[in-house]
Amino acid sequence: METAAEYAKRRETLNDQVLFQADLPTKRFFALDHDVYSEGALPKKTKELMGLVASTVLRCDDCISYHLTESVEQGASDQEITEALSIALVVGGSITIPHLRHAMAFLDTMERPGAGSREA
Amino acid sequence: METAAEYAKRRETLNDQVLFQADLPTKRFFALDHDVYSEGALPKKTKELMGLVASTVLRCDDCISYHLTESVEQGASDQEITEALSIALVVGGSITIPHLRHAMAFLDTMERPGAGSREA
Amino acid sequence: METAAEYAKRRETLNDQVLFQADLPTKRFFALDHDVYSEGALPKKTKELMGLVASTVLRCDDCISYHLTESVEQGASDQEITEALSIALVVGGSITIPHLRHAMAFLDTMERPGAGSREA
Amino acid sequence: METAAEYAKRRETLNDQVLFQADLPTKRFFALDHDVYSEGALPKKTKELMGLVASTVLRCDDCISYHLTESVEQGASDQEITEALSIALVVGGSITIPHLRHAMAFLDTMERPGAGSREA
Amino acid sequence: METAAEYAKRRETLNDQVLFQADLPTKRFFALDHDVYSEGALPKKTKELMGLVASTVLRCDDCISYHLTESVEQGASDQEITEALSIALVVGGSITIPHLRHAMAFLDTMERPGAGSREA
Amino acid sequence: METAAEYAKRRETLNDQVLFQADLPTKRFFALDHDVYSEGALPKKTKELMGLVASTVLRCDDCISYHLTESVEQGASDQEITEALSIALVVGGSITIPHLRHAMAFLDTMERPGAGSREA
Repeated sequence: METAAEYAKRRETLNDQVLFQADLPTKRFFALDHDVYSEGALPKKTKELMGLVASTVLRCDDCISYHLTESVEQGASDQEITEALSIALVVGGSITIPHLRHAMAFLDTMERPGAGSREA
Repeated sequence: METAAEYAKRRETLNDQVLFQADLPTKRFFALDHDVYSEGALPKKTKELMGLVASTVLRCDDCISYHLTESVEQGASDQEITEALSIALVVGGSITIPHLRHAMAFLDTMERPGAGSREA
Repeated sequence: METAAEYAKRRETLNDQVLFQADLPTKRFFALDHDVYSEGALPKKTKELMGLVASTVLRCDDCISYHLTESVEQGASDQEITEALSIALVVGGSITIPHLRHAMAFLDTMERPGAGSREA
Repeated sequence: METAAEYAKRRETLNDQVLFQADLPTKRFFALDHDVYSEGALPKKTKELMGLVASTVLRCDDCISYHLTESVEQGASDQEITEALSIALVVGGSITIPHLRHAMAFLDTMERPGAGSREA
Repeated sequence: METAAEYAKRRETLNDQVLFQADLPTKRFFALDHDVYSEGALPKKTKELMGLVASTVLRCDDCISYHLTESVEQGASDQEITEALSIALVVGGSITIPHLRHAMAFLDTMERPGAGSREA
Repeated sequence: METAAEYAKRRETLNDQVLFQADLPTKRFFALDHDVYSEGALPKKTKELMGLVASTVLRCDDCISYHLTESVEQGASDQEITEALSIALVVGGSITIPHLRHAMAFLDTMERPGAGSREA
């Protein structure tokens, strides 16, 4: 499985490729996609977890990887991530289960201080 | 348009009708659908807003009405709701716009203390 | 709520309208859409119930009404319909619940011999 | 059924309501949603028909109404609209049929010079 | 391509990983996801084929693999599987075709008595 | 990454496998899926670009590869493809971005006269 670090690198390369040929609406969309997760009335961590829930019910592994990375970076705990994924599972049904598997496997590839307990 | 109060009543009547004939898995699912939004590592308000985001990207007006009701009841501000819906819009695209319209129209039918400013 | 009889009539009128202007691929698609539910290795009743499950996970009330009508006509019992809808609920998640409500309300508008017990 | 004129009015009122409370990302998204259909390497008519196809496979009646209005305004013929909808039907399957019915019924509420032949 | 045996093993490992960290709602969901396919008014074989149809219209290869495995184990014939997939194709449209390809390729990796005729 | 040539070959092999076991409705669907993109009131190029938009909003990489191949073969320019993908992005939201990445990476594997400028 692709690690979190490999994913981040591949994502950046491919985004560059998209933006190289992109027209103005696509470039603006990418800017928007960045801005909408900024700290506001809701904390950035909450917004990234919302992005995680949306990505899971829409069943996009690539988007799950991205929002997991950002959520962890914003300090989301394993318990918070688990609860967010539970909501996605109940809303989205068993069809989301393969994406829960992806999320768990992806988390295991991330270097996180103090996250080793699951492998114990 | 159906008001928030009328919606809540219709929803309850129809859920009773579903549960009357439901088999055990469906009854258990309904219990689960209640439990997953309980206060935990994430506050109930955040979970309801996550339910709102999931409902919007999946484009379910009925579910949007429900999670808006619960979010407001948990103290979500207009600004927090707006930011959650913005995330849903960017993730889900213009196809979610009719559901943003529904959300705004539904909010206006709710009796909320101090929410009158939008009509000013 | 529109009754089963009213639905059937509206559906027929609108289908005529679609087919009046339709090109050849659309006409052929409509023929195919009829043929695929024919008695085969799987009984027609099972196929209509499969159509019901597919319509529910894809969240199409109109399609649910159609396959409920056909399923009942093929002799599907309340219990069989309930089990099919349970599968759809677990696969498709809570987002399908409004469509379960529609299914139950629609069934109540159908004239079915011996189906009165739910209202008792 | 809501006529094309009534739809256009309702849409405008509700969009105003959304934008009144919207934050910056949502306002920018609405601008983008307008710009992306501008005349470019592809003619505006083709882009609106693409919007129609996308709206149909994603099964959004409201969006279908909008892109039908714009397509007709850009000079799309009945035959062109029919062919676009056929593609949507084949890509999206029978689950899109209720939306083809909506499209045809909506077209009949539009005031179009020389479009009376279907009612003949 | 991953064989049916490899898939079954990977699925089990990853499910264990999900359940290791899962909260109570997720654990209950997994139990429910098992129970809903139990023998009832509808035979287990029919229910697994319904799971196959639902998985195909929702375009989840992983879920297709699972329900194909279970369907074959319950005695579903090639003809019954083919008819179920045809329904999914017509309901879900050409967008499901890559998943039909997956289903056929997956079936070929399963060890099934008397199923060799397709390769003849 | 699979090249355009490898994709075309794999697709053909798997389609043969599907059609070998297919029943009549599936065979007819495949014929329909071919016919609907034929030259008509709309040029074949426009239809293939519509197929590309539909495939992108429905997030099917395999279908994107197919319609990109056909669009380029019909003479679609980079600018036309970019504009079609922009529409898909705005309609379908950020969840389609991984599929834009796929589209761009796939285009780079195609042998196209005069398309080398992006790599410069």
